[in-house]
Amino acid sequence: MDQILAYIDTNLDASLDRLFALLRIPSISAQPAHAADCRRAAMWARDELASLGFTARLSETTGLPGVIATHHGAGPDAPHVLFYGHYDVQPADPLDLWHADPFDPQLVDGPRGRRIIGRGAVDDKGQVVSFLEAVRAHLAVTGTLPVRLTILLEGEEECGSPSLAELLSRERANLGADFVLVADTNMWNFDTPAITMSLRGMAAVEVTIKAATRDLHSGLFGGIALNPINALTRILGDLTDDQGSVRIPGFYDGVKPVPEALLTSWQALGFDAEAFLGDVGLHSPAGEHGQSPLAQLWARPTADINGIYGGYQGDGSKTVIPAEATAKLTFRLVPGQDPAAILVNFERFVTDRLRPDAKASFKSFGASPGFAISPNAPFMRAAQAALAAEFGKPAALIGCGASIPVVEAFKTHLGLDTLLAGFGLEDDCIHSPNEKFEVGCFHRGARAHARLLAAFGPQ
Amino acid sequence: MDQILAYIDTNLDASLDRLFALLRIPSISAQPAHAADCRRAAMWARDELASLGFTARLSETTGLPGVIATHHGAGPDAPHVLFYGHYDVQPADPLDLWHADPFDPQLVDGPRGRRIIGRGAVDDKGQVVSFLEAVRAHLAVTGTLPVRLTILLEGEEECGSPSLAELLSRERANLGADFVLVADTNMWNFDTPAITMSLRGMAAVEVTIKAATRDLHSGLFGGIALNPINALTRILGDLTDDQGSVRIPGFYDGVKPVPEALLTSWQALGFDAEAFLGDVGLHSPAGEHGQSPLAQLWARPTADINGIYGGYQGDGSKTVIPAEATAKLTFRLVPGQDPAAILVNFERFVTDRLRPDAKASFKSFGASPGFAISPNAPFMRAAQAALAAEFGKPAALIGCGASIPVVEAFKTHLGLDTLLAGFGLEDDCIHSPNEKFEVGCFHRGARAHARLLAAFGPQ
Repeated sequence: MDQILAYIDTNLDASLDRLFALLRIPSISAQPAHAADCRRAAMWARDELASLGFTARLSETTGLPGVIATHHGAGPDAPHVLFYGHYDVQPADPLDLWHADPFDPQLVDGPRGRRIIGRGAVDDKGQVVSFLEAVRAHLAVTGTLPVRLTILLEGEEECGSPSLAELLSRERANLGADFVLVADTNMWNFDTPAITMSLRGMAAVEVTIKAATRDLHSGLFGGIALNPINALTRILGDLTDDQGSVRIPGFYDGVKPVPEALLTSWQALGFDAEAFLGDVGLHSPAGEHGQSPLAQLWARPTADINGIYGGYQGDGSKTVIPAEATAKLTFRLVPGQDPAAILVNFERFVTDRLRPDAKASFKSFGASPGFAISPNAPFMRAAQAALAAEFGKPAALIGCGASIPVVEAFKTHLGLDTLLAGFGLEDDCIHSPNEKFEVGCFHRGARAHARLLAAFGPQ
Repeated sequence: MDQILAYIDTNLDASLDRLFALLRIPSISAQPAHAADCRRAAMWARDELASLGFTARLSETTGLPGVIATHHGAGPDAPHVLFYGHYDVQPADPLDLWHADPFDPQLVDGPRGRRIIGRGAVDDKGQVVSFLEAVRAHLAVTGTLPVRLTILLEGEEECGSPSLAELLSRERANLGADFVLVADTNMWNFDTPAITMSLRGMAAVEVTIKAATRDLHSGLFGGIALNPINALTRILGDLTDDQGSVRIPGFYDGVKPVPEALLTSWQALGFDAEAFLGDVGLHSPAGEHGQSPLAQLWARPTADINGIYGGYQGDGSKTVIPAEATAKLTFRLVPGQDPAAILVNFERFVTDRLRPDAKASFKSFGASPGFAISPNAPFMRAAQAALAAEFGKPAALIGCGASIPVVEAFKTHLGLDTLLAGFGLEDDCIHSPNEKFEVGCFHRGARAHARLLAAFGPQ
């Protein structure tokens, strides 16, 4: 292992050169004008993997192709890892806020040493290349890999993965593995690696309350005609109780308390809720009473109204009782909650509160369950050991309040669990101007990936 | 009196000819292209009044002129009536829904006899001319009038009366009278005249709840960050209790119960709430429990949310916790309520319910008190007697749930109470295509006005 890590250290500048070659390709998947660039990035990755001894090919879809590469040098009985990353990037707009051409990557000095600046520096080209460099080091030093390895690089992650389900279904037989390793998340901080243990799921719904068949004059009808905005606020005003708990019947069915050990490990993270909220002008955690800020963010479900509209929205006032009013809600869900039941129960919550003359209609926009890795999964122990060895301290076992759709796709289409261990930082400005990746993160990411590959292999 | 009424009956066709001449002038005050037409209508009225023996002139404003005419033949000690009407009309759009040119008035047969069709047929040219014909009949038969009469015709009623306050202030000395008579309202039905005894006032306000300094991702912040839409619905959901009563502190201060006699007279009107609501697709009165439908409409204050908006309003869903949310409300007020206090109390109602991190700001858009005529006002007894004599039954003493701004303006600028007695019908399609005025209403309106003038004079 020392030789492999030394190889990575010695070849860091060459690794950065390879990353920069990929960063120079403006593979913006959301912009059709860059379709050829996306394909060029896919071919760059295919050729790079082929040169490392992989069987590598493009997998065409109705959109942009995936890259699939396999290296089975470890033999048919070795553990099998599926690595996932994406070669596409976000648009670079607004261009005038960049200090340099987003597709002419730069190395500049920062408070934590050198940093790579450019679109895709960390999301996800930098993370992908840090993995490829770990693979290169293993192959250079040992001539093979500790595990059977399949690599899948997607080309549409930044535009909603429209072809991913199609690709996974079609390539199912070629993507069999023991689990998926994804390098597209963050460390806890510059010194502390992290494994994302849970993601919240989501159910999205729109509710419209209708009353009269047309807008009414509030003088001629006010006091006798049901006002659908009043009705909607009255119903949604009931969504949470005084303790911040959601009042939809059965909402917490299946929600398990956060294990004590995990809560304790979260306390040790020293999360500064005041600073986190202060960054966006807030001061105090607004969620369920009796839950810690990290539990509110990672382990407890929510009911947020994301949009509301009805009646007059212009300047001044208008004496109208509108015919309808609409709200859009999303529920962030944790493992154990049944997304379909949440939507059904929300409809019941609304219809139970309807007054005469109010009619409710609903549209749902998909529902996905929460996700959690068992801390006892075999790959978890290997991953924790490898990360602790590289960083000299255990990985933070964190949660994520959002969804990562590929994780659900792997479960749905391949039946695989996902290990989320990435090397970005919160301040990397992904999706924003001057996206960066600390060279220190890139370098330790490559070293950590090398250790992970070894740890996943036969011990 | 019989001679005067006979004169009106005999000259009905000539009266209609005069009305039609005025209806042919497209005096649309909202459209600058029709400014010259408006002025033409004003001059028509001025000349008509001058030909009747009035001292008549235009009173220029920064907008369209008013017409002011006086006839003091009754002598300095006679009662003094100020008649108000307006010579401008609503735009005629959508033109393709009219069965004929809106400014080429027609007489057509309908279920209640002939009807006049054209823009302004009833609102307000038809009502104004029915009064002028009553004046003409008095002058033709007796050579004078029973009262000192001042006539004010406004030219901007249909576009919000922007110059009325200026006109009333400047002409204050020329508009002194005992009370104002307005012919711009409806009868209870074709057989039953009505006096509008009360109008609701209004207070309008906008409230914005702000939380974070920017829109937040509902996955990364959901559960810990205050959501201003949730906060707004929670506050406004509290606006009324289960009995439909408004929960703003002090909201009902000064509200007096409807006098038993008035309630009894309302019951006798046979108001069909189901039919009224059924016309707009509703079924049941939604206001305060224990109040009759007419009391809900005419005599009780309301709190209606006229508009609400915040966050995402497009198709599908968006995982955003917005930075702010806004609602617009109007309170319909009844006599006794203090509009300024209502606005202050509403602000307190909101701020008392603000959670940490929620900030509320308010904009108010004016406030006017409710208005009621005392049933004992001297002109009331005269008016009731005159209308009963003409129609063979007493006038319905009705309320109006909306405001009529000129009534407040007369009180504010001239210190005068207003008698609202008009001869339109609910189905006259004012402001809509194919506006009409029943010839029967026009004719009996002229006869009733003749009786009113006599009744207001010395008995």
